[in-house]
Amino acid sequence: MLGTGASAFVPKIPGAELEGVFTLKNLNDAIRIKTFIRNRGCRKAIVVGAGFIGMEMSEALRTLGIETLVIDLLPRPAARWDPEFSKAILEELSRQNITFSGNTRMESIERGKDYRLRLNADKGVIEADMILIAVGIRPNVKLANDLGLQIGKTGAIHVDFSQCTSKEGIYAVGDCCEVYHHISKSWVYIPLGDVANKQGRVAGHNIGGRPMILQGVVGAQSFKLFTLEVAATGLDESEASDCGYHPVSAIIWGNAIARSMPGEKKLGIKMVADRATGNLLGAQAVGAMGAVSRINTLSCALWAGMGLDEIAYLDFAYAPPVGPAWDPIHIAAQELIRKL
Amino acid sequence: MLGTGASAFVPKIPGAELEGVFTLKNLNDAIRIKTFIRNRGCRKAIVVGAGFIGMEMSEALRTLGIETLVIDLLPRPAARWDPEFSKAILEELSRQNITFSGNTRMESIERGKDYRLRLNADKGVIEADMILIAVGIRPNVKLANDLGLQIGKTGAIHVDFSQCTSKEGIYAVGDCCEVYHHISKSWVYIPLGDVANKQGRVAGHNIGGRPMILQGVVGAQSFKLFTLEVAATGLDESEASDCGYHPVSAIIWGNAIARSMPGEKKLGIKMVADRATGNLLGAQAVGAMGAVSRINTLSCALWAGMGLDEIAYLDFAYAPPVGPAWDPIHIAAQELIRKL
Repeated sequence: MLGTGASAFVPKIPGAELEGVFTLKNLNDAIRIKTFIRNRGCRKAIVVGAGFIGMEMSEALRTLGIETLVIDLLPRPAARWDPEFSKAILEELSRQNITFSGNTRMESIERGKDYRLRLNADKGVIEADMILIAVGIRPNVKLANDLGLQIGKTGAIHVDFSQCTSKEGIYAVGDCCEVYHHISKSWVYIPLGDVANKQGRVAGHNIGGRPMILQGVVGAQSFKLFTLEVAATGLDESEASDCGYHPVSAIIWGNAIARSMPGEKKLGIKMVADRATGNLLGAQAVGAMGAVSRINTLSCALWAGMGLDEIAYLDFAYAPPVGPAWDPIHIAAQELIRKL
Repeated sequence: MLGTGASAFVPKIPGAELEGVFTLKNLNDAIRIKTFIRNRGCRKAIVVGAGFIGMEMSEALRTLGIETLVIDLLPRPAARWDPEFSKAILEELSRQNITFSGNTRMESIERGKDYRLRLNADKGVIEADMILIAVGIRPNVKLANDLGLQIGKTGAIHVDFSQCTSKEGIYAVGDCCEVYHHISKSWVYIPLGDVANKQGRVAGHNIGGRPMILQGVVGAQSFKLFTLEVAATGLDESEASDCGYHPVSAIIWGNAIARSMPGEKKLGIKMVADRATGNLLGAQAVGAMGAVSRINTLSCALWAGMGLDEIAYLDFAYAPPVGPAWDPIHIAAQELIRKL
């Protein structure tokens, strides 16, 4: 059974090997970063890449009191989310005094003058004591290649529903292999810890002689940024179009709990549905509370292939301190029904 | 369209009409209680009934610094929940210095000596400045009876999927009427605010000439008790047996978020499934966080008629601060699969 995982991707630029330049994929990376900050000090850090790791690490670094700047090739942080939700993320970054610089390409790293390192970007020069490169990961497939195993279109190891590779008796699980996506009906690369756990259990069952399959995922994912929960599931419009679906979407802002209760409860939900069937295809949510919980419920709805007409009237455990009578899920589904 | 609501039930006991004895069903009741406490003072209160209203009001009274005692005919508070979860509720009451006396029948109320009122119970005598009777509500069906409308077995007005009563052109919604239960496949009386909202919208559509039906509910419900979320959905074992299902259940204690994160995160989930089909029939949850969110997701699973094999591997938006890699939902479903 192959569990060769993935490695952080580092663009081939001069200076990427300098001391103070890090990636974060495993426990050793984390220890290296903590040791560096503790022993050498860090006044300012640059995070290259505004994905999950970049966002989580910007919070971790800022919480240590380090001046933090995030740059990304794309114009917005967490660009898989709708621009309206990226705005909420940008506002949170700004509230926490983290600078974001979009449309920015890192070109090289060298020794700095005022700080330990200097990052040369197409937009100018920035100095910092530490640079974290978090621009994605690549599956480790060398061993699989050496074994002659089939590699999928995604670049990760091809497996079937039993986690078996193209060679009988050889299994693969986790960040090195693909997983079946229940909405796009295709094999995708979604290297996440919970998926890896499920794949591991399925492979273990089969290897141990007790047949089991992993039916697939719906693409549920989330991260936390200070007080903000950011979550998504299923397909966005462009992924849906690529599948031949007819996506139509709506964004609403509701409250995670009843309006009468205290606390920051604004919750944004975006839903994407198929105009041909009225079925849910995907959803995104952002808010100080309740975003992940709604995305989990909608992941269940996606798994069941539910239509908006059912989702708009789902029965939830309503009580004012824990949710409004009309949940943001209901409101989003009803809004989207009007646009179908 | 009848929206005659429900009234608080008051047992026919001597002294129920005395000043300082209250029920809580509407805004006027709430104003009366607040005015009484403000103008007359209240050192000690007795809450009769340990259901939703009794639990929520015991928190409200205690938060005002009032010594609070809850009594109930049944041995446990919130007795619809499993005894193991009632224990968690009892612990929370005790932590908040609220006394609970189970198996206690109120027999009469009279003027008190040290306090304004005296409650005579089968177990003894208790004095207090205020008594709140919260032993349930009854649908207001007088007008419906006068109109000759069919009343259901539950005592509430019979309606169809369009919210139409037994007489064409007469509709009913809210706490005065029944609702269809998707799991028991029967018409039940679940007078909750979110259900009333849905019924109102469906009746309005039909009255306005735009056909619409309410497909039903799954029995989702919750309340908050200080820091504890208490929620349930679907059927419990006895309700399931009454329907001819073959209930088997499991209780597990997991964590609402990853074990490595700070905070009180212990979460109990009970699942009930049908041994014949492996399908989920109901669930309960109790915890400082995440109980309602799990019950909402499971309400969606119930609506979709999902089996435990699917629920045990549902794809959620995993990230350590918002949920563990194996969610308590997965763990409970897997535990229950072993018992099928």
